[in-house]
Amino acid sequence: MIVISRLLLIVFLALPTSFPVMAVGNPLPSWNEGASRQAILDFVAKVTKKGGPDYVPPEERIAVFDNDGTLWAEQPAYFQFLFAIDRVKALAPQHPEWKDQPTFKAVLDNDFKALAASGEKGLIEIVMATHAGMTTVEFEQTVKDWLAVARHPRFNRPYTELVYQPMLEVLALLRANGFKNYIVSGGGIEFIRVWALKVYGIPPEQVVGSSIKTKYELRDGKPVLVRLPEIDFIDDKAGKPVGINTFIGRKPIAAFGNSDGDLQMLQWTASGQGARLMMLIHHTDAEREYAYDRDTHFGRLDQALVEAQQHAWTVVDMKRDWKRVFPHESR
Amino acid sequence: MIVISRLLLIVFLALPTSFPVMAVGNPLPSWNEGASRQAILDFVAKVTKKGGPDYVPPEERIAVFDNDGTLWAEQPAYFQFLFAIDRVKALAPQHPEWKDQPTFKAVLDNDFKALAASGEKGLIEIVMATHAGMTTVEFEQTVKDWLAVARHPRFNRPYTELVYQPMLEVLALLRANGFKNYIVSGGGIEFIRVWALKVYGIPPEQVVGSSIKTKYELRDGKPVLVRLPEIDFIDDKAGKPVGINTFIGRKPIAAFGNSDGDLQMLQWTASGQGARLMMLIHHTDAEREYAYDRDTHFGRLDQALVEAQQHAWTVVDMKRDWKRVFPHESR
Repeated sequence: MIVISRLLLIVFLALPTSFPVMAVGNPLPSWNEGASRQAILDFVAKVTKKGGPDYVPPEERIAVFDNDGTLWAEQPAYFQFLFAIDRVKALAPQHPEWKDQPTFKAVLDNDFKALAASGEKGLIEIVMATHAGMTTVEFEQTVKDWLAVARHPRFNRPYTELVYQPMLEVLALLRANGFKNYIVSGGGIEFIRVWALKVYGIPPEQVVGSSIKTKYELRDGKPVLVRLPEIDFIDDKAGKPVGINTFIGRKPIAAFGNSDGDLQMLQWTASGQGARLMMLIHHTDAEREYAYDRDTHFGRLDQALVEAQQHAWTVVDMKRDWKRVFPHESR
Repeated sequence: MIVISRLLLIVFLALPTSFPVMAVGNPLPSWNEGASRQAILDFVAKVTKKGGPDYVPPEERIAVFDNDGTLWAEQPAYFQFLFAIDRVKALAPQHPEWKDQPTFKAVLDNDFKALAASGEKGLIEIVMATHAGMTTVEFEQTVKDWLAVARHPRFNRPYTELVYQPMLEVLALLRANGFKNYIVSGGGIEFIRVWALKVYGIPPEQVVGSSIKTKYELRDGKPVLVRLPEIDFIDDKAGKPVGINTFIGRKPIAAFGNSDGDLQMLQWTASGQGARLMMLIHHTDAEREYAYDRDTHFGRLDQALVEAQQHAWTVVDMKRDWKRVFPHESR
């Protein structure tokens, strides 16, 4: 029996967190019973059943997740946008000229109507002013510092606590079944990488996102990567399959999104052979979170909802399907 | 004993290939004893020694490998370039106009002097004519078909057999010790991904390389990615740290290269804290492979050799350090 115990010990020490083991008990405790929860469980059972018709070897178990509105909240605005606004305010003393530039003036005056009027051009101005001009290491520190103190205007909590508990459970279930979970986000890859491992258990190499260009240079003989005010890649809409192909080089077998920005990612995932899971989170819960779809500035869901119905993709009704939205809610 | 046997069986079935286990016996049988072999073994021992001053947790054990000239041969020309030349010849009947275009005419006439004279512009023309204008799936098939029949002009073997046996052993040793091995190549990411898993055990998501743009579109309602004749990213020289940061988001702790195209990747790797391994393959063996450094069209090694000596990076002398170069050599 000592031999067996030692062997068991070795087994436990040996198992990396990604080792495929079905979670014991209810692996999705924050999901109400129903079609959405069942679709996830059925899919996982199918693709992991050795010898079954839908079996997928572990190395091909790629799952992709949109971030804003799918893994964490995106209202009243994308959190990275709120970060940019806070940065403009923090940097304003060094930029007296901003008072005379409409976009920056709008931010400094909290005039969101004027800000909206500045359109995509204004948005890019703000992103470049706050996301470029420093090294990658400096940018990472800025994001960390902001996350430590910034609070969500409605929930008064750090943004990293406004992640969806049911989705954390999906990530854990898939990981426990040998899946590799990727974030495929329209948000900035370097912004998300700062906290994705800690918050989602997703390492930097499994984050795909939008990016600006960087330039390698030696500063006092020490190599740095400098962030340039130039767009490199927009990982949104038709850019998502492109990003998936570039970074992963395999077609996912499961895709989770919540907006029209995720439509092509779901189409791309659906186009492969074999069992597939395509899922849209529909924000239907104004009380616990937010209720929006066609009529919103952030995370518009319209055409993707139509296609989901056409193709019988799974649509999660947040209010109906989720027992709990955020980790901080009492169960 | 049945219980123990079953447990043992479970243990063996359970161990993923990436599970950290020191290879038994001599893990580098194709390396002669000496400083290069010892540098690899010492490094691996240091970073995997739990509680040691240089211990690195498995998730941070990132190793990056140049491909051409580091993992497989690159003479008499980059193999992907030879692929492009073969493709020009195969496609020529559909392009009668090529006979009047100097670059293509040079290829069709096997006039390498005229081809060299067409310079980078000519090279890009050839790459775009042979690598763009089809879907990613079609391109993959073309590469597969070519690899199945193409033979190296000197060794008369498939190109995928002209990989370096000692480097296959390094890949295996690192993998067995919990490392994630990445290719970081100036060559085309989609070209390498076709065969890297089979030949090196490196999956598509661990290949970083140069790329052309792709565009998502629906053809008869079916999603495809079309390869466009437009450069997306050149993963060479100062581009390599950029590619590493974009795709991996972590700084490697080990880097293997063979030319000036790898210098910045080695600098970037060296700039991190803690134990590091920087290694250059010096092609010194005209008999078994090739001998070249400063004076070659493909894989020029000049400044990187100087810096390697300055910083005491490990320089592998192929003739002296490698007992065997290719897998097909008798041992």
